[in-house]
Amino acid sequence: MTSSQGESAQGQGALREQPVGLVGLGLIGGSLGLDLQAAGLEVRALVHRASTAERARERQLAMRIDTDPAVLEGCGLIVLALPLDRLLDPPAELLAALPPDAVITDVGSVKQPVLERWEPLHPRFVASHPMAGTAEAGVEAGLTGLFAGRPWVATPSSTTDPAALALVQELAAVVQAQWLCCEAAAHDRAVALISHMPVLVSAALLEAADQGGRAAGAEALVRQLASSGFADTSRIGGGNPELGTLMARCNRSSVLDALEEYQQQLKLLQTLVEESNWEALRSRLKHCHTLRPSFLNN
Amino acid sequence: MTSSQGESAQGQGALREQPVGLVGLGLIGGSLGLDLQAAGLEVRALVHRASTAERARERQLAMRIDTDPAVLEGCGLIVLALPLDRLLDPPAELLAALPPDAVITDVGSVKQPVLERWEPLHPRFVASHPMAGTAEAGVEAGLTGLFAGRPWVATPSSTTDPAALALVQELAAVVQAQWLCCEAAAHDRAVALISHMPVLVSAALLEAADQGGRAAGAEALVRQLASSGFADTSRIGGGNPELGTLMARCNRSSVLDALEEYQQQLKLLQTLVEESNWEALRSRLKHCHTLRPSFLNN
Repeated sequence: MTSSQGESAQGQGALREQPVGLVGLGLIGGSLGLDLQAAGLEVRALVHRASTAERARERQLAMRIDTDPAVLEGCGLIVLALPLDRLLDPPAELLAALPPDAVITDVGSVKQPVLERWEPLHPRFVASHPMAGTAEAGVEAGLTGLFAGRPWVATPSSTTDPAALALVQELAAVVQAQWLCCEAAAHDRAVALISHMPVLVSAALLEAADQGGRAAGAEALVRQLASSGFADTSRIGGGNPELGTLMARCNRSSVLDALEEYQQQLKLLQTLVEESNWEALRSRLKHCHTLRPSFLNN
Repeated sequence: MTSSQGESAQGQGALREQPVGLVGLGLIGGSLGLDLQAAGLEVRALVHRASTAERARERQLAMRIDTDPAVLEGCGLIVLALPLDRLLDPPAELLAALPPDAVITDVGSVKQPVLERWEPLHPRFVASHPMAGTAEAGVEAGLTGLFAGRPWVATPSSTTDPAALALVQELAAVVQAQWLCCEAAAHDRAVALISHMPVLVSAALLEAADQGGRAAGAEALVRQLASSGFADTSRIGGGNPELGTLMARCNRSSVLDALEEYQQQLKLLQTLVEESNWEALRSRLKHCHTLRPSFLNN
Protein backbone atom coordinates (compact mmCIF):
# COMPACT_ATOMS: atom_id res chain seq x y z
CA MET A 1 0.00 0.00 0.00
CA THR A 2 1.34 3.41 -0.91
CA SER A 3 0.03 6.80 0.04
CA SER A 4 0.74 10.34 -1.11
CA GLN A 5 -0.91 13.69 -1.58
CA GLY A 6 -0.13 16.30 -4.19
CA GLU A 7 2.85 14.20 -5.21
CA SER A 8 4.22 14.75 -8.71
CA ALA A 9 2.86 11.87 -10.79
CA GLN A 10 4.44 10.30 -13.86
CA GLY A 11 3.17 12.20 -16.87
CA GLN A 12 2.14 15.24 -14.80
CA GLY A 13 0.10 17.58 -16.91
CA ALA A 14 -1.13 14.86 -19.29
CA LEU A 15 -4.61 15.28 -17.82
CA ARG A 16 -4.88 18.75 -19.34
CA GLU A 17 -4.05 17.66 -22.89
CA GLN A 18 -7.50 16.26 -23.71
CA PRO A 19 -11.02 16.72 -22.31
CA VAL A 20 -12.11 14.62 -19.31
CA GLY A 21 -15.30 12.62 -19.89
CA LEU A 22 -17.78 11.84 -17.12
CA VAL A 23 -20.35 9.07 -17.45
CA GLY A 24 -23.07 10.00 -14.98
CA LEU A 25 -23.57 13.30 -13.16
CA GLY A 26 -24.84 12.15 -9.76
CA LEU A 27 -23.12 13.01 -6.50
CA ILE A 28 -19.66 11.79 -7.59
CA GLY A 29 -19.82 12.69 -11.30
CA GLY A 30 -21.38 16.08 -10.65
CA SER A 31 -18.87 16.95 -7.92
CA LEU A 32 -15.99 15.93 -10.19
CA GLY A 33 -17.43 18.09 -12.98
CA LEU A 34 -17.52 21.15 -10.74
CA ASP A 35 -14.01 20.65 -9.30
CA LEU A 36 -12.36 19.81 -12.63
CA GLN A 37 -13.85 22.83 -14.38
CA ALA A 38 -12.81 25.03 -11.44
CA ALA A 39 -9.27 23.70 -12.01
CA GLY A 40 -9.47 24.81 -15.65
CA LEU A 41 -10.03 21.41 -17.28
CA GLU A 42 -12.39 20.80 -20.16
CA VAL A 43 -15.17 18.46 -19.00
CA ARG A 44 -17.73 16.58 -21.11
CA ALA A 45 -20.49 14.37 -19.77
CA LEU A 46 -22.78 11.58 -20.86
CA VAL A 47 -26.05 11.17 -18.99
CA HIS A 48 -28.94 8.76 -19.38
CA ARG A 49 -31.98 11.03 -19.54
CA ALA A 50 -32.75 14.25 -21.40
CA SER A 51 -34.24 15.78 -18.23
CA THR A 52 -31.01 15.08 -16.33
CA ALA A 53 -29.00 16.64 -19.16
CA GLU A 54 -31.12 19.78 -18.99
CA ARG A 55 -30.80 20.18 -15.24
CA ALA A 56 -27.05 19.37 -15.35
CA ARG A 57 -26.59 22.10 -17.96
CA GLU A 58 -28.42 24.56 -15.72
CA ARG A 59 -26.09 23.58 -12.87
CA GLN A 60 -23.08 23.80 -15.24
CA LEU A 61 -21.79 20.41 -14.10
CA ALA A 62 -19.83 20.04 -17.38
CA MET A 63 -19.16 22.12 -20.50
CA ARG A 64 -20.85 19.73 -22.91
CA ILE A 65 -23.58 17.42 -21.62
CA ASP A 66 -25.40 14.95 -23.83
CA THR A 67 -27.39 11.72 -23.88
CA ASP A 68 -25.46 10.69 -27.02
CA PRO A 69 -22.30 8.64 -26.23
CA ALA A 70 -20.55 10.49 -29.06
CA VAL A 71 -19.98 13.30 -26.53
CA LEU A 72 -17.10 11.18 -25.16
CA GLU A 73 -15.19 11.35 -28.45
CA GLY A 74 -11.72 12.80 -28.02
CA CYS A 75 -11.65 12.44 -24.22
CA GLY A 76 -8.28 11.33 -22.76
CA LEU A 77 -9.69 10.15 -19.45
CA ILE A 78 -13.21 8.87 -18.88
CA VAL A 79 -14.65 8.42 -15.38
CA LEU A 80 -17.50 5.93 -15.10
CA ALA A 81 -19.47 7.55 -12.26
CA LEU A 82 -22.24 4.97 -12.37
CA PRO A 83 -24.04 2.94 -9.68
CA LEU A 84 -22.39 -0.46 -9.15
CA ASP A 85 -25.10 -2.46 -10.88
CA ARG A 86 -24.89 -0.40 -14.07
CA LEU A 87 -21.09 -0.37 -13.88
CA LEU A 88 -21.04 -4.18 -13.74
CA ASP A 89 -23.53 -4.46 -16.61
CA PRO A 90 -22.49 -1.67 -18.99
CA PRO A 91 -24.67 -1.01 -22.07
CA ALA A 92 -23.11 -1.98 -25.41
CA GLU A 93 -23.46 1.55 -26.79
CA LEU A 94 -21.37 2.90 -23.90
CA LEU A 95 -18.65 0.30 -24.55
CA ALA A 96 -18.66 1.15 -28.25
CA ALA A 97 -18.22 4.86 -27.48
CA LEU A 98 -15.13 4.46 -25.27
CA PRO A 99 -12.03 5.48 -27.27
CA PRO A 100 -9.51 2.57 -27.18
CA ASP A 101 -6.62 4.89 -26.29
CA ALA A 102 -8.47 6.75 -23.50
CA VAL A 103 -7.86 5.88 -19.86
CA ILE A 104 -11.02 4.54 -18.23
CA THR A 105 -11.61 4.57 -14.48
CA ASP A 106 -14.60 4.04 -12.18
CA VAL A 107 -15.71 5.22 -8.74
CA GLY A 108 -17.35 2.05 -7.40
CA SER A 109 -17.16 1.15 -3.72
CA VAL A 110 -16.30 -2.49 -4.55
CA LYS A 111 -13.21 -3.21 -6.63
CA GLN A 112 -12.62 -6.93 -7.27
CA PRO A 113 -15.77 -7.55 -9.40
CA VAL A 114 -15.26 -4.24 -11.24
CA LEU A 115 -11.68 -5.17 -12.09
CA GLU A 116 -12.73 -8.63 -13.27
CA ARG A 117 -15.50 -7.18 -15.43
CA TRP A 118 -13.65 -4.22 -16.93
CA GLU A 119 -10.09 -5.41 -17.50
CA PRO A 120 -11.16 -7.63 -20.41
CA LEU A 121 -13.35 -4.81 -21.76
CA HIS A 122 -10.74 -2.08 -22.07
CA PRO A 123 -6.90 -2.16 -22.20
CA ARG A 124 -6.44 1.05 -20.20
CA PHE A 125 -8.90 0.46 -17.37
CA VAL A 126 -7.92 1.53 -13.84
CA ALA A 127 -10.13 0.50 -10.91
CA SER A 128 -10.51 3.29 -8.37
CA HIS A 129 -12.70 4.44 -5.50
CA PRO A 130 -12.90 8.02 -4.26
CA MET A 131 -14.16 7.63 -0.69
CA ALA A 132 -16.36 10.66 -0.37
CA GLY A 133 -20.07 10.96 0.01
CA THR A 134 -23.06 12.68 1.46
CA ALA A 135 -26.59 11.41 2.04
CA GLU A 136 -27.62 13.00 -1.27
CA ALA A 137 -27.86 11.45 -4.73
CA GLY A 138 -28.80 12.54 -8.23
CA VAL A 139 -28.15 15.52 -10.44
CA GLU A 140 -28.79 18.00 -7.59
CA ALA A 141 -26.23 16.36 -5.28
CA GLY A 142 -22.88 17.33 -6.83
CA LEU A 143 -20.91 19.93 -4.89
CA THR A 144 -17.45 21.50 -4.95
CA GLY A 145 -14.66 20.28 -2.68
CA LEU A 146 -16.25 16.88 -2.00
CA PHE A 147 -12.95 14.97 -2.44
CA ALA A 148 -10.55 17.34 -0.68
CA GLY A 149 -8.55 15.45 1.95
CA ARG A 150 -10.55 12.25 1.42
CA PRO A 151 -8.94 8.96 0.31
CA TRP A 152 -8.95 8.11 -3.40
CA VAL A 153 -8.06 4.45 -3.57
CA ALA A 154 -6.77 2.79 -6.73
CA THR A 155 -6.53 -0.99 -6.98
CA PRO A 156 -4.25 -1.70 -9.95
CA SER A 157 -3.66 -5.28 -11.06
CA SER A 158 -0.43 -6.73 -12.46
CA THR A 159 -1.62 -5.79 -15.96
CA THR A 160 -2.72 -2.20 -15.24
CA ASP A 161 -1.02 0.29 -17.59
CA PRO A 162 1.29 2.43 -15.35
CA ALA A 163 0.72 5.57 -17.48
CA ALA A 164 -3.04 5.08 -17.13
CA LEU A 165 -2.66 4.72 -13.36
CA ALA A 166 -0.58 7.92 -13.29
CA LEU A 167 -3.32 9.81 -15.13
CA VAL A 168 -5.92 8.75 -12.55
CA GLN A 169 -3.51 9.78 -9.79
CA GLU A 170 -3.29 13.18 -11.47
CA LEU A 171 -7.10 13.41 -11.45
CA ALA A 172 -7.15 12.63 -7.72
CA ALA A 173 -4.49 15.31 -7.12
CA VAL A 174 -6.52 17.95 -9.00
CA VAL A 175 -9.48 17.40 -6.66
CA GLN A 176 -7.07 17.36 -3.68
CA ALA A 177 -7.83 13.79 -2.66
CA GLN A 178 -5.45 11.58 -0.68
CA TRP A 179 -4.05 8.95 -3.09
CA LEU A 180 -3.78 5.33 -1.97
CA CYS A 181 -2.98 2.10 -3.84
CA CYS A 182 -3.82 -1.39 -2.58
CA GLU A 183 -4.92 -4.84 -3.79
CA ALA A 184 -8.56 -4.98 -4.93
CA ALA A 185 -9.27 -7.88 -2.56
CA ALA A 186 -7.76 -6.02 0.42
CA HIS A 187 -9.84 -2.96 -0.47
CA ASP A 188 -13.03 -4.99 -0.59
CA ARG A 189 -12.35 -6.69 2.76
CA ALA A 190 -11.50 -3.33 4.37
CA VAL A 191 -14.61 -1.50 3.10
CA ALA A 192 -16.75 -4.46 4.13
CA LEU A 193 -15.45 -4.00 7.69
CA ILE A 194 -15.67 -0.23 7.98
CA SER A 195 -18.51 0.64 5.60
CA HIS A 196 -20.66 -2.13 4.11
CA MET A 197 -21.16 -4.44 7.12
CA PRO A 198 -21.76 -1.45 9.47
CA VAL A 199 -24.79 -0.48 7.34
CA LEU A 200 -26.41 -3.79 8.32
CA VAL A 201 -25.30 -3.46 11.96
CA SER A 202 -26.88 -0.01 12.06
CA ALA A 203 -30.04 -1.09 10.21
CA ALA A 204 -30.60 -3.98 12.64
CA LEU A 205 -30.52 -1.45 15.49
CA LEU A 206 -33.47 0.45 14.00
CA GLU A 207 -35.43 -2.77 13.55
CA ALA A 208 -34.58 -3.92 17.10
CA ALA A 209 -35.65 -0.63 18.69
CA ASP A 210 -38.88 -0.70 16.68
CA GLN A 211 -39.73 -4.38 17.25
CA GLY A 212 -38.41 -4.47 20.82
CA GLY A 213 -40.31 -1.28 21.68
CA ARG A 214 -43.49 -2.77 20.27
CA ALA A 215 -43.01 -6.06 22.15
CA ALA A 216 -42.50 -4.13 25.40
CA GLY A 217 -45.59 -1.96 24.80
CA ALA A 218 -43.22 1.02 24.64
CA GLU A 219 -43.45 1.94 20.97
CA ALA A 220 -43.86 5.66 21.67
CA LEU A 221 -41.50 5.68 24.66
CA VAL A 222 -38.47 4.33 22.73
CA ARG A 223 -38.99 7.15 20.23
CA GLN A 224 -39.35 9.83 22.89
CA LEU A 225 -36.22 8.68 24.72
CA ALA A 226 -33.97 8.12 21.70
CA SER A 227 -31.26 10.76 21.72
CA SER A 228 -28.11 11.76 19.84
CA GLY A 229 -26.38 8.44 20.60
CA PHE A 230 -29.14 6.49 18.89
CA ALA A 231 -29.28 9.02 16.04
CA ASP A 232 -25.55 8.58 15.35
CA THR A 233 -25.55 4.79 15.66
CA SER A 234 -28.56 4.43 13.35
CA ARG A 235 -27.53 7.00 10.71
CA ILE A 236 -26.00 4.73 8.08
CA GLY A 237 -28.61 2.00 8.66
CA GLY A 238 -31.33 4.52 7.83
CA GLY A 239 -29.50 5.74 4.71
CA ASN A 240 -30.03 5.08 1.00
CA PRO A 241 -31.57 1.56 0.66
CA GLU A 242 -30.41 1.13 -2.96
CA LEU A 243 -26.81 1.86 -2.02
CA GLY A 244 -26.89 -0.44 1.01
CA THR A 245 -28.28 -3.26 -1.13
CA LEU A 246 -25.71 -2.76 -3.89
CA MET A 247 -22.85 -2.81 -1.38
CA ALA A 248 -24.02 -6.12 0.09
CA ARG A 249 -24.73 -7.59 -3.34
CA CYS A 250 -21.45 -6.59 -4.99
CA ASN A 251 -19.25 -7.29 -1.97
CA ARG A 252 -21.23 -10.27 -0.71
CA SER A 253 -18.51 -12.63 0.49
CA SER A 254 -16.48 -9.93 2.27
CA VAL A 255 -19.66 -8.57 3.88
CA LEU A 256 -20.57 -12.07 5.11
CA ASP A 257 -17.05 -12.55 6.52
CA ALA A 258 -17.24 -9.16 8.23
CA LEU A 259 -20.68 -10.01 9.67
CA GLU A 260 -19.26 -13.27 11.03
CA GLU A 261 -16.43 -11.38 12.73
CA TYR A 262 -18.89 -8.81 14.06
CA GLN A 263 -21.25 -11.39 15.50
CA GLN A 264 -18.36 -13.11 17.31
CA GLN A 265 -17.37 -9.82 18.90
CA LEU A 266 -20.93 -9.02 19.94
CA LYS A 267 -21.39 -12.54 21.31
CA LEU A 268 -18.27 -12.06 23.42
CA LEU A 269 -19.70 -8.88 24.96
CA GLN A 270 -23.06 -10.61 25.46
CA THR A 271 -21.36 -13.46 27.33
CA LEU A 272 -19.65 -11.01 29.68
CA VAL A 273 -23.03 -9.44 30.50
CA GLU A 274 -24.62 -12.89 30.97
CA GLU A 275 -21.80 -13.90 33.32
CA SER A 276 -21.95 -10.53 35.12
CA ASN A 277 -18.22 -10.30 34.46
CA TRP A 278 -18.05 -6.52 34.91
CA GLU A 279 -14.28 -6.32 35.24
CA ALA A 280 -13.82 -7.99 31.84
CA LEU A 281 -16.59 -5.88 30.27
CA ARG A 282 -14.97 -2.69 31.56
CA SER A 283 -11.65 -3.85 30.15
CA ARG A 284 -13.19 -4.55 26.70
CA LEU A 285 -14.93 -1.17 26.65
CA LYS A 286 -11.66 0.50 27.66
CA HIS A 287 -10.04 -1.23 24.69
CA CYS A 288 -12.77 0.14 22.39
CA HIS A 289 -12.30 3.61 23.87
CA THR A 290 -8.59 3.35 23.02
CA LEU A 291 -9.22 1.86 19.56
CA ARG A 292 -11.61 4.48 18.24
CA PRO A 293 -9.21 7.43 17.78
CA SER A 294 -7.06 5.26 15.47
CA PHE A 295 -10.05 5.12 13.08
CA LEU A 296 -10.62 8.88 13.08
CA ASN A 297 -7.62 10.12 11.14
CA ASN A 298 -9.58 11.10 8.07
CA MET B 1 -47.25 7.85 30.00
CA THR B 2 -47.82 11.58 30.24
CA SER B 3 -45.83 14.36 28.67
CA SER B 4 -45.74 18.10 29.12
CA GLN B 5 -43.40 21.06 28.97
CA GLY B 6 -43.54 24.18 31.09
CA GLU B 7 -46.91 22.99 32.40
CA SER B 8 -48.04 24.43 35.68
CA ALA B 9 -47.32 21.78 38.29
CA GLN B 10 -49.14 21.17 41.53
CA GLY B 11 -47.46 23.29 44.20
CA GLN B 12 -45.82 25.60 41.62
CA GLY B 13 -43.29 27.81 43.32
CA ALA B 14 -42.62 25.38 46.18
CA LEU B 15 -39.16 24.79 44.73
CA ARG B 16 -38.14 28.36 45.60
CA GLU B 17 -39.11 28.13 49.27
CA GLN B 18 -36.02 26.22 50.40
CA PRO B 19 -32.51 25.66 49.00
CA VAL B 20 -31.95 22.85 46.48
CA GLY B 21 -29.24 20.36 47.47
CA LEU B 22 -27.05 18.57 44.96
CA VAL B 23 -25.12 15.42 45.84
CA GLY B 24 -22.31 15.27 43.28
CA LEU B 25 -21.16 18.01 40.89
CA GLY B 26 -20.23 16.01 37.79
CA LEU B 27 -21.81 16.60 34.39
CA ILE B 28 -25.42 16.37 35.63
CA GLY B 29 -24.97 17.86 39.09
CA GLY B 30 -22.74 20.68 37.86
CA SER B 31 -25.07 21.53 34.97
CA LEU B 32 -28.06 21.59 37.35
CA GLY B 33 -26.14 23.87 39.70
CA LEU B 34 -25.44 26.38 36.93
CA ASP B 35 -29.00 26.38 35.54
CA LEU B 36 -30.73 26.53 38.93
CA GLN B 37 -28.59 29.44 40.13
CA ALA B 38 -29.21 31.24 36.83
CA ALA B 39 -32.94 30.82 37.55
CA GLY B 40 -32.44 32.51 40.91
CA LEU B 41 -32.57 29.43 43.16
CA GLU B 42 -30.34 28.87 46.17
CA VAL B 43 -28.15 25.82 45.52
CA ARG B 44 -26.01 23.87 47.98
CA ALA B 45 -23.82 20.90 47.12
CA LEU B 46 -22.16 17.94 48.76
CA VAL B 47 -19.08 16.49 47.05
CA HIS B 48 -16.77 13.62 47.95
CA ARG B 49 -13.32 15.20 47.74
CA ALA B 50 -11.84 18.47 49.00
CA SER B 51 -10.11 19.04 45.63
CA THR B 52 -13.46 18.70 43.82
CA ALA B 53 -15.04 21.15 46.27
CA GLU B 54 -12.28 23.66 45.58
CA ARG B 55 -12.60 23.43 41.80
CA ALA B 56 -16.42 23.47 41.98
CA ARG B 57 -16.25 26.66 44.05
CA GLU B 58 -13.98 28.25 41.42
CA ARG B 59 -16.51 27.26 38.76
CA GLN B 60 -19.36 28.56 41.00
CA LEU B 61 -21.37 25.38 40.47
CA ALA B 62 -23.29 26.05 43.70
CA MET B 63 -23.44 28.76 46.37
CA ARG B 64 -22.28 26.54 49.23
CA ILE B 65 -20.11 23.51 48.45
CA ASP B 66 -18.81 21.17 51.11
CA THR B 67 -17.54 17.65 51.80
CA ASP B 68 -19.60 17.65 55.04
CA PRO B 69 -23.13 16.23 54.56
CA ALA B 70 -24.39 18.90 56.98
CA VAL B 71 -24.39 21.24 53.96
CA LEU B 72 -27.70 19.57 52.95
CA GLU B 73 -29.47 20.76 56.11
CA GLY B 74 -32.56 22.81 55.35
CA CYS B 75 -32.78 21.75 51.69
CA GLY B 76 -36.32 21.16 50.43
CA LEU B 77 -35.26 19.10 47.39
CA ILE B 78 -32.10 17.03 47.14
CA VAL B 79 -30.87 15.64 43.81
CA LEU B 80 -28.62 12.57 44.05
CA ALA B 81 -26.41 13.19 41.01
CA LEU B 82 -24.24 10.14 41.63
CA PRO B 83 -22.98 7.32 39.42
CA LEU B 84 -25.33 4.32 39.48
CA ASP B 85 -23.07 2.13 41.61
CA ARG B 86 -22.77 4.74 44.37
CA LEU B 87 -26.48 5.54 44.09
CA LEU B 88 -27.33 1.88 44.65
CA ASP B 89 -24.90 1.59 47.57
CA PRO B 90 -25.27 4.93 49.38
CA PRO B 91 -22.97 5.67 52.31
CA ALA B 92 -24.62 5.70 55.76
CA GLU B 93 -23.51 9.26 56.46
CA LEU B 94 -25.32 10.48 53.34
CA LEU B 95 -28.51 8.68 54.39
CA ALA B 96 -28.24 10.17 57.87
CA ALA B 97 -27.90 13.69 56.42
CA LEU B 98 -31.05 13.58 54.27
CA PRO B 99 -33.83 15.57 55.98
CA PRO B 100 -36.90 13.30 56.39
CA ASP B 101 -39.24 15.98 55.03
CA ALA B 102 -37.10 16.85 51.99
CA VAL B 103 -37.96 15.48 48.54
CA ILE B 104 -35.19 13.21 47.25
CA THR B 105 -34.67 12.42 43.59
CA ASP B 106 -31.91 10.85 41.48
CA VAL B 107 -30.65 11.12 37.90
CA GLY B 108 -29.74 7.46 37.21
CA SER B 109 -30.20 5.98 33.74
CA VAL B 110 -31.79 2.82 35.22
CA LYS B 111 -34.90 3.16 37.34
CA GLN B 112 -36.26 -0.17 38.61
CA PRO B 113 -33.28 -1.04 40.89
CA VAL B 114 -33.05 2.58 42.08
CA LEU B 115 -36.73 2.62 43.01
CA GLU B 116 -36.41 -0.72 44.83
CA ARG B 117 -33.36 0.47 46.76
CA TRP B 118 -34.50 3.97 47.63
CA GLU B 119 -38.23 3.72 48.34
CA PRO B 120 -37.61 1.88 51.63
CA LEU B 121 -34.84 4.38 52.51
CA HIS B 122 -36.81 7.61 52.23
CA PRO B 123 -40.57 8.39 52.32
CA ARG B 124 -40.37 11.20 49.74
CA PHE B 125 -38.13 9.58 47.12
CA VAL B 126 -38.95 10.18 43.43
CA ALA B 127 -37.05 8.17 40.79
CA SER B 128 -36.13 10.31 37.79
CA HIS B 129 -33.82 10.41 34.79
CA PRO B 130 -32.87 13.58 32.93
CA MET B 131 -31.81 12.29 29.50
CA ALA B 132 -29.01 14.66 28.68
CA GLY B 133 -25.35 14.06 28.32
CA THR B 134 -22.08 14.82 26.64
CA ALA B 135 -18.92 12.74 26.37
CA GLU B 136 -17.49 14.65 29.34
CA ALA B 137 -17.52 13.75 33.02
CA GLY B 138 -16.32 15.23 36.31
CA VAL B 139 -16.26 18.65 37.90
CA GLU B 140 -15.16 20.36 34.66
CA ALA B 141 -18.06 18.91 32.65
CA GLY B 142 -21.08 20.85 33.92
CA LEU B 143 -22.50 23.41 31.50
CA THR B 144 -25.54 25.67 31.19
CA GLY B 145 -28.57 24.67 29.14
CA LEU B 146 -27.77 20.94 29.12
CA PHE B 147 -31.38 19.90 29.85
CA ALA B 148 -33.27 22.35 27.63
CA GLY B 149 -35.68 20.50 25.35
CA ARG B 150 -34.40 17.08 26.52
CA PRO B 151 -36.65 14.47 28.18
CA TRP B 152 -36.74 14.35 31.98
CA VAL B 153 -38.39 11.05 32.80
CA ALA B 154 -39.94 10.31 36.19
CA THR B 155 -40.97 6.77 37.13
CA PRO B 156 -43.29 7.13 40.11
CA SER B 157 -44.60 4.02 41.85
CA SER B 158 -48.03 3.58 43.42
CA THR B 159 -46.61 4.86 46.71
CA THR B 160 -44.79 7.94 45.39
CA ASP B 161 -45.89 11.14 47.21
CA PRO B 162 -47.72 13.28 44.58
CA ALA B 163 -46.44 16.54 46.09
CA ALA B 164 -42.88 15.21 45.92
CA LEU B 165 -43.40 14.27 42.27
CA ALA B 166 -44.75 17.77 41.56
CA LEU B 167 -41.64 19.32 43.08
CA VAL B 168 -39.38 17.28 40.79
CA GLN B 169 -41.56 18.27 37.84
CA GLU B 170 -41.04 21.90 38.85
CA LEU B 171 -37.26 21.29 38.88
CA ALA B 172 -37.44 19.87 35.34
CA ALA B 173 -39.48 22.88 34.20
CA VAL B 174 -36.90 25.34 35.61
CA VAL B 175 -34.16 23.75 33.46
CA GLN B 176 -36.60 23.67 30.50
CA ALA B 177 -36.64 19.88 30.19
CA GLN B 178 -39.49 17.92 28.61
CA TRP B 179 -41.36 16.15 31.44
CA LEU B 180 -42.41 12.52 30.99
CA CYS B 181 -43.83 9.92 33.39
CA CYS B 182 -43.78 6.17 32.83
CA GLU B 183 -43.42 2.86 34.66
CA ALA B 184 -39.87 2.14 35.87
CA ALA B 185 -39.83 -1.23 34.09
CA ALA B 186 -40.96 0.34 30.79
CA HIS B 187 -38.28 3.01 31.15
CA ASP B 188 -35.58 0.39 31.72
CA ARG B 189 -36.65 -1.70 28.71
CA ALA B 190 -36.81 1.41 26.51
CA VAL B 191 -33.37 2.75 27.48
CA ALA B 192 -31.91 -0.73 27.04
CA LEU B 193 -33.15 -0.67 23.43
CA ILE B 194 -32.15 2.88 22.50
CA SER B 195 -29.15 3.53 24.70
CA HIS B 196 -27.60 0.69 26.72
CA MET B 197 -27.64 -2.18 24.19
CA PRO B 198 -26.49 0.14 21.35
CA VAL B 199 -23.28 0.82 23.33
CA LEU B 200 -22.41 -2.87 23.00
CA VAL B 201 -23.49 -2.98 19.33
CA SER B 202 -21.22 -0.02 18.64
CA ALA B 203 -18.32 -1.39 20.71
CA ALA B 204 -18.43 -4.72 18.85
CA LEU B 205 -18.03 -2.79 15.61
CA LEU B 206 -14.73 -1.30 16.78
CA GLU B 207 -13.47 -4.73 17.84
CA ALA B 208 -14.62 -6.30 14.54
CA ALA B 209 -12.91 -3.64 12.41
CA ASP B 210 -9.74 -4.02 14.46
CA GLN B 211 -9.70 -7.84 14.57
CA GLY B 212 -11.06 -8.29 11.04
CA GLY B 213 -8.57 -5.78 9.68
CA ARG B 214 -5.74 -7.63 11.39
CA ALA B 215 -6.93 -11.02 10.11
CA ALA B 216 -7.10 -9.64 6.55
CA GLY B 217 -3.62 -8.10 6.81
CA ALA B 218 -5.29 -4.73 6.39
CA GLU B 219 -4.80 -3.23 9.84
CA ALA B 220 -3.63 0.13 8.48
CA LEU B 221 -5.99 0.11 5.48
CA VAL B 222 -9.19 -0.20 7.57
CA ARG B 223 -8.05 2.85 9.54
CA GLN B 224 -7.18 4.86 6.44
CA LEU B 225 -10.51 4.09 4.78
CA ALA B 226 -12.77 4.57 7.82
CA SER B 227 -14.86 7.69 7.28
CA SER B 228 -17.70 9.65 8.89
CA GLY B 229 -20.10 6.69 8.69
CA PHE B 230 -17.77 4.54 10.79
CA ALA B 231 -17.07 7.45 13.13
CA ASP B 232 -20.78 7.93 13.83
CA THR B 233 -21.59 4.25 14.21
CA SER B 234 -18.67 3.68 16.60
CA ARG B 235 -19.10 6.83 18.71
CA ILE B 236 -21.02 5.45 21.68
CA GLY B 237 -19.04 2.17 21.67
CA GLY B 238 -15.84 4.17 22.08
CA GLY B 239 -17.31 6.28 24.88
CA ASN B 240 -16.87 6.21 28.67
CA PRO B 241 -16.11 2.57 29.65
CA GLU B 242 -17.25 3.04 33.28
CA LEU B 243 -20.63 4.34 32.16
CA GLY B 244 -21.10 1.56 29.58
CA THR B 245 -20.29 -1.06 32.21
CA LEU B 246 -22.65 0.46 34.80
CA MET B 247 -25.50 0.57 32.28
CA ALA B 248 -25.09 -3.13 31.46
CA ARG B 249 -24.64 -4.07 35.12
CA CYS B 250 -27.59 -2.11 36.50
CA ASN B 251 -29.96 -2.89 33.61
CA ARG B 252 -28.66 -6.39 32.94
CA SER B 253 -31.86 -8.29 32.14
CA SER B 254 -33.30 -5.59 29.86
CA VAL B 255 -29.94 -5.25 28.10
CA LEU B 256 -29.80 -9.02 27.53
CA ASP B 257 -33.37 -8.99 26.15
CA ALA B 258 -32.51 -6.09 23.87
CA LEU B 259 -29.35 -7.89 22.67
CA GLU B 260 -31.44 -10.97 21.89
CA GLU B 261 -33.86 -8.87 19.83
CA TYR B 262 -30.94 -7.15 18.11
CA GLN B 263 -29.19 -10.38 17.19
CA GLN B 264 -32.41 -11.74 15.68
CA GLN B 265 -32.72 -8.65 13.50
CA LEU B 266 -29.09 -8.83 12.41
CA LYS B 267 -29.40 -12.56 11.71
CA LEU B 268 -32.40 -11.82 9.48
CA LEU B 269 -30.36 -9.34 7.42
CA GLN B 270 -27.45 -11.80 7.30
CA THR B 271 -29.74 -14.52 5.94
CA LEU B 272 -30.96 -12.22 3.16
CA VAL B 273 -27.33 -11.59 2.12
CA GLU B 274 -26.50 -15.32 2.33
CA GLU B 275 -29.51 -16.11 0.14
CA SER B 276 -28.71 -13.24 -2.24
CA ASN B 277 -32.28 -12.12 -1.69
CA TRP B 278 -31.67 -8.54 -2.83
CA GLU B 279 -35.33 -7.60 -3.26
CA ALA B 280 -36.06 -8.49 0.36
CA LEU B 281 -32.88 -6.77 1.58
CA ARG B 282 -33.82 -3.59 -0.28
CA SER B 283 -37.28 -3.75 1.25
CA ARG B 284 -35.86 -4.12 4.81
CA LEU B 285 -33.44 -1.24 4.28
CA LYS B 286 -36.30 0.88 2.91
CA HIS B 287 -38.20 0.09 6.10
CA CYS B 288 -35.19 1.24 8.17
CA HIS B 289 -34.95 4.40 6.08
CA THR B 290 -38.61 5.10 6.90
CA LEU B 291 -38.25 4.14 10.58
CA ARG B 292 -35.34 6.39 11.46
CA PRO B 293 -37.05 9.82 11.33
CA SER B 294 -39.57 8.62 13.94
CA PHE B 295 -36.62 8.27 16.37
CA LEU B 296 -35.26 11.77 15.72
CA ASN B 297 -37.91 13.93 17.33
CA ASN B 298 -35.72 15.01 20.21
